[in-house]
Amino acid sequence: MHHMFQEILQQPAVVANLLDHQQAAAREVARLVETRQITQIVLAARGTSDHAAVYGQYLFQIQNHLAAFLATPSVVTLYNSRPRLRSTMVIGISQSGRALDVMEYMAAAREQGSPVVAITNNPESDFGQHADILLDLDAGQEHSVAATKTYTASLAALALISACMCQRPDALRALFTVPELIARAVQETSGLARVAAEVVDESECFVIGRGLNYSTALETALKIMETSYSRARAYSSADLLHGPVAAAQSVPCIVYAPRDAAHQAVLETAERLRELGTQMMVISSDREALALADHPVHIPAGEMEFLDPLAQIVAGQRFAYHLAVARGLDPDHPRGLTKVTVTR
Amino acid sequence: MHHMFQEILQQPAVVANLLDHQQAAAREVARLVETRQITQIVLAARGTSDHAAVYGQYLFQIQNHLAAFLATPSVVTLYNSRPRLRSTMVIGISQSGRALDVMEYMAAAREQGSPVVAITNNPESDFGQHADILLDLDAGQEHSVAATKTYTASLAALALISACMCQRPDALRALFTVPELIARAVQETSGLARVAAEVVDESECFVIGRGLNYSTALETALKIMETSYSRARAYSSADLLHGPVAAAQSVPCIVYAPRDAAHQAVLETAERLRELGTQMMVISSDREALALADHPVHIPAGEMEFLDPLAQIVAGQRFAYHLAVARGLDPDHPRGLTKVTVTR
Repeated sequence: MHHMFQEILQQPAVVANLLDHQQAAAREVARLVETRQITQIVLAARGTSDHAAVYGQYLFQIQNHLAAFLATPSVVTLYNSRPRLRSTMVIGISQSGRALDVMEYMAAAREQGSPVVAITNNPESDFGQHADILLDLDAGQEHSVAATKTYTASLAALALISACMCQRPDALRALFTVPELIARAVQETSGLARVAAEVVDESECFVIGRGLNYSTALETALKIMETSYSRARAYSSADLLHGPVAAAQSVPCIVYAPRDAAHQAVLETAERLRELGTQMMVISSDREALALADHPVHIPAGEMEFLDPLAQIVAGQRFAYHLAVARGLDPDHPRGLTKVTVTR
Repeated sequence: MHHMFQEILQQPAVVANLLDHQQAAAREVARLVETRQITQIVLAARGTSDHAAVYGQYLFQIQNHLAAFLATPSVVTLYNSRPRLRSTMVIGISQSGRALDVMEYMAAAREQGSPVVAITNNPESDFGQHADILLDLDAGQEHSVAATKTYTASLAALALISACMCQRPDALRALFTVPELIARAVQETSGLARVAAEVVDESECFVIGRGLNYSTALETALKIMETSYSRARAYSSADLLHGPVAAAQSVPCIVYAPRDAAHQAVLETAERLRELGTQMMVISSDREALALADHPVHIPAGEMEFLDPLAQIVAGQRFAYHLAVARGLDPDHPRGLTKVTVTR
């Protein structure tokens, strides 16, 4: 069995382990936010970790009403600028702990006294040196080049921080139901092997999500590109209508349409694509949305919409995996890629 | 002659007009930043205007050392959250003045007392109602659905604000040389009609830029998608190496490699692509970078690297235009698109 598939299956256990062992660190982050009067969070990451950062950006704004933004590390690393960060906490995320530009950004934030949090699967790396608090993903070694379990673990770490910060006991309780939700998502997506075999000749696709699940769309597109070399492109349903829809008619689309606050907006985009005759896979718990699809994929909704992206992404991961296998490719060793990418 | 081509040619005049007539408003913005002790700018926009916002994000961080980030308006419009903005100025950009979600975000910022700036080509619209200061792009009506002159005008408006804020006379002086620089870029890109005819059968491409010219890559990819229905995808050269490079071997790439602080990083990516045998167009004033290209496109460097994206984009616009024409398409009226896109 491929590592990538095994690691997809490990996700319920990995997330459960993280929730059990990182609560103290997450509470420490929440305390720091309070004592330092933090009103804003800036997330710094690259690649898959950057998609986790996009999730965090929405989550902190929606659940915690903090301003939250994504860093552009090259401003620090290439242009040598030091924009002033005020009342800001920086969260750096790196699966490998070797993202040099993210580390430089974290160091620059610390120089000016901003508290810094590191989230990594490699706590032995230098990554933690640049942080006041470290959350260890503790996901076990990830053998496949395409990251899966470290992505959901990063999402869980951010959700744990967010739940500790908002001091709503129901938020924390709901988080503990997520491993079960992911396990159900794994079960209900077994049909994707067949779907992948049917669409094996398609060389490209668009992946659409909005709000909290924009991150899911980004990560799905990256998985497909990494393992199948298909051209996959993620869009917020809002941005799709600004131009790219001109191309969407002839490109199959994967649409994330969970029943959350963005549902109506995504549904309207899916209906527009249906009118255009676009071939569509829809991932949702909503019957109306699924009815629009050539390939409906049911993913159960959890207790809180904030947490659904941890289960939704399983569909994207499995589809990318099965597509690679259907094409006779080795998803564990994509050509031209290595496990660690170092950028400055 | 197509409107799109005419509007590309109008850009030197449009930018010169903006610099002549919007200085008072830009100085007012700079005054507000000082009196209100603004340390951070948040930019809100969609589509082409969002690419101008990406330019502004880099510019304000690099030239003004202010923290600068992109808004996610759906947090306000869909999730009804009001993240607290502290010491923050919000700049909303909308060519049509009809971006509802951007307006709602601006209104939410004003409710909490943050100063708000509007940049639009339609000052008669409701857009200005949500702002303390309005910059009128005054670019004349844009007839082509694919925005060109309103994009460069938006960049110029942001550069004017930045120059007024940094109180360096050389920054303002350099800005006034930009219309001439754009005119030279228009001249030197006339060969792109021939290049477009040569690559007319390619159905997709990657567009690569980094730092200040990441915006140029994003906007180029959108122009190509809008007018030629080709699948075009922009990457920061840093992100390309996180996965998508697996697909890049068989996809032609357009690489923006001006001689700025990001040059070395982009050059290394171009060399990697060269090794992979990727077909490449390189847009640069640098001989070494141009030598790597199958299709070298010389664009002169201006006085300050901050301002080069206003000239670089001309290459992308012209290429998209000529590609559409070479394919027998009407770049002024792409299928499925209208001039105004309203999202919530």
